Amino acid sequence: MHTEDIYYEDYEIGHVRETLGRTITETDFVVHAGHTGDFFPHHMDADWCATQPFGQRIAHGTMVFSIGIGMTASVINPQAFSYGYDRLRFIRPVHIGDTIRTRVTITRKEPDAKRIGMGQVIEACEVLNQDGKVVLATDHILLAKMKGAA
Amino acid sequence: MHTEDIYYEDYEIGHVRETLGRTITETDFVVHAGHTGDFFPHHMDADWCATQPFGQRIAHGTMVFSIGIGMTASVINPQAFSYGYDRLRFIRPVHIGDTIRTRVTITRKEPDAKRIGMGQVIEACEVLNQDGKVVLATDHILLAKMKGAA
Amino acid sequence: MHTEDIYYEDYEIGHVRETLGRTITETDFVVHAGHTGDFFPHHMDADWCATQPFGQRIAHGTMVFSIGIGMTASVINPQAFSYGYDRLRFIRPVHIGDTIRTRVTITRKEPDAKRIGMGQVIEACEVLNQDGKVVLATDHILLAKMKGAA
Amino acid sequence: MHTEDIYYEDYEIGHVRETLGRTITETDFVVHAGHTGDFFPHHMDADWCATQPFGQRIAHGTMVFSIGIGMTASVINPQAFSYGYDRLRFIRPVHIGDTIRTRVTITRKEPDAKRIGMGQVIEACEVLNQDGKVVLATDHILLAKMKGAA
Amino acid sequence: MHTEDIYYEDYEIGHVRETLGRTITETDFVVHAGHTGDFFPHHMDADWCATQPFGQRIAHGTMVFSIGIGMTASVINPQAFSYGYDRLRFIRPVHIGDTIRTRVTITRKEPDAKRIGMGQVIEACEVLNQDGKVVLATDHILLAKMKGAA
Amino acid sequence: MHTEDIYYEDYEIGHVRETLGRTITETDFVVHAGHTGDFFPHHMDADWCATQPFGQRIAHGTMVFSIGIGMTASVINPQAFSYGYDRLRFIRPVHIGDTIRTRVTITRKEPDAKRIGMGQVIEACEVLNQDGKVVLATDHILLAKMKGAA
Repeated sequence: MHTEDIYYEDYEIGHVRETLGRTITETDFVVHAGHTGDFFPHHMDADWCATQPFGQRIAHGTMVFSIGIGMTASVINPQAFSYGYDRLRFIRPVHIGDTIRTRVTITRKEPDAKRIGMGQVIEACEVLNQDGKVVLATDHILLAKMKGAA
Repeated sequence: MHTEDIYYEDYEIGHVRETLGRTITETDFVVHAGHTGDFFPHHMDADWCATQPFGQRIAHGTMVFSIGIGMTASVINPQAFSYGYDRLRFIRPVHIGDTIRTRVTITRKEPDAKRIGMGQVIEACEVLNQDGKVVLATDHILLAKMKGAA
Repeated sequence: MHTEDIYYEDYEIGHVRETLGRTITETDFVVHAGHTGDFFPHHMDADWCATQPFGQRIAHGTMVFSIGIGMTASVINPQAFSYGYDRLRFIRPVHIGDTIRTRVTITRKEPDAKRIGMGQVIEACEVLNQDGKVVLATDHILLAKMKGAA
Repeated sequence: MHTEDIYYEDYEIGHVRETLGRTITETDFVVHAGHTGDFFPHHMDADWCATQPFGQRIAHGTMVFSIGIGMTASVINPQAFSYGYDRLRFIRPVHIGDTIRTRVTITRKEPDAKRIGMGQVIEACEVLNQDGKVVLATDHILLAKMKGAA
Repeated sequence: MHTEDIYYEDYEIGHVRETLGRTITETDFVVHAGHTGDFFPHHMDADWCATQPFGQRIAHGTMVFSIGIGMTASVINPQAFSYGYDRLRFIRPVHIGDTIRTRVTITRKEPDAKRIGMGQVIEACEVLNQDGKVVLATDHILLAKMKGAA
Repeated sequence: MHTEDIYYEDYEIGHVRETLGRTITETDFVVHAGHTGDFFPHHMDADWCATQPFGQRIAHGTMVFSIGIGMTASVINPQAFSYGYDRLRFIRPVHIGDTIRTRVTITRKEPDAKRIGMGQVIEACEVLNQDGKVVLATDHILLAKMKGAA
């Protein structure tokens, strides 16, 4: 974790970075249920899950999102802030013992229509499992200052 | 938490439900940082925050989303599943000691173009603070079975 | 979780409700030890337990009680409060991987001798494992307002 | 924490022991809610509590019990096991910042009617706050081997 | 946990005490990563570890130290305080499922050169695994009051 | 967090790096007590601490060490591993609300006497509080491969 000034102009379309991996554990399931209050049996009842088509406990979507995005938090950029996320999709289930990592690709950027001197940068965030399959995808919208405006 | 069959036809546009409140504590900040690995000083360094325009620690966006959505997890509906979220926006900061609750409004529904016998239901989720201000907003996309198809 | 006014007169003897299930994990053992400070080897030392007649780690009684009762917390009733528990018994051990649920049966009610306008309602709480065996039983004493007195 | 053989005959009626103190924190409230799934606003919503007669968040009864009993877990006695608890009562509320300790008094003992060579020992457990007021009381029933029978 | 006055003169060279055992769980790995912010793949990524010579996740050194020392915290001695640790060494890896205990041997003592009426007591702390092998060793330096000086 | 090959020859004596800050919270105290099993009143009993010369709860030494070192975990260097720590000293107390950061200075290096092709690098680690005062100091011993030997 370090601090670095990155302006709108510095973001390069096509740039890709990838985090290290992290194994999702039963502990993470229990911690996330306790943190959010969502104790649905899909996440918490191994016996019931064994009777369902999906066969085993499934990670909360909010957890895959939170950990997947959390893993990308390595550079503090004082020249940008997070505006939100578009098209957040849960593509494949994550089970206990899966190992996930996140790939971030700069896919688009454009000056912000309403904020003079700012631009929107779109980071396509894909959370991948140990087989390289995408389990979650979303577009992160970053608002970054332009150099002239700084 | 209980189980109830709710089909596409059962969702009524304009229907609103609201959760009880929950105070966001310093503990939640520390738990979420530890759960996600995001120890950015915006969330964790009270002294540094005091020198910034925002003045105090700000909750992780992923935490407001996870807890805000978690609070809505009260009815298990075997006839629907979560497809994803659109337009997730962090509208106001959440600080230690704020009390949040979530309001869910059915705003739209339409038959799913690709999945015969299924329909998309849009739940507008708004996380509100103790002053009734929206701090986070997003559209939850639910895929629900139609009655005839069940 | 929702709020509902339930008066003494509304409780029906013989009424039964049952929670969904939850798998008790190694994480729960570690969290409960850390929360209570009880690190007895019966709960924490897998190697030593393997040399004992019970063969494997046993859940803290206080944990089975806390989670078993916690799972019943679904309706906030402003017209009643918890007075205490009688005859709390640990009937069978709970091990890592067991799935528990709680069955609550209204077994008795009577006007409270000392509190005019209040009545005692006894809820027999039984925590069951995945084989339907009772692992913990206790009588919950609820003090509920009478309608006339409200 | 150490191991010591204590037989039925060794328990002396009137013997009192008292634990050290522990301050109950907001963290304990959040951890207990997350561990048990009980997010009732009485424990979790500071704003709502401020509008109620009790004025502030109240500890879960199951938490005061679990921590109060957990603090007494200092001697492992292979000659006894816990049979259960009688008359568990929540006498005064515990709030964030209160400091509790537990006093254990041997109040009764008698040979067990059904188990030859065993006796029941009753430990009156009182959880006290910083003002020396009892907040929780219960009778712990211990089943201890008799010396001759060991 | 109890309080006992132990002076410099009371510490006997060669005295040995040993804690009970505790199984190190995957939960402890996840809790320690979250508590310290150290999410290195050596501790967190089971898949990557499987490709490395050590084959499986390895406990954080700081965790083995913290838990190993924490297990020795049983007697509060108002006549001494911890000055620090010398020669802290990580001798063998600790894996998920290993059971550790700590052996403390008084190996040396001498009057403190700078603090009149105080003496240094060296406790050799060895954390052992289930095979009796030392996994961590360090010398704890205790500063204890002399009786005359008290 | 990223991976980078750093050999013995690459370490420069006098090189200094400093982490960002982190506020130590009451939550950290409770989590560390629960993680290690050390519930000494110096860390856990606010009322008792108020009667002592130090006046308020003091962080566990093992926690300041674990978090202080954890904050430095930003670069994975496959060419070095941690051998241990020397002269770990607790210089000033850390209280709830203090903000700490860690400064790492390369102070010494020398070829390892026993391991051909390896060298010892000493990193002086100082944990500082919000006033810039050192609260903990220790020498970290790194064993790094030499370039020729790699």
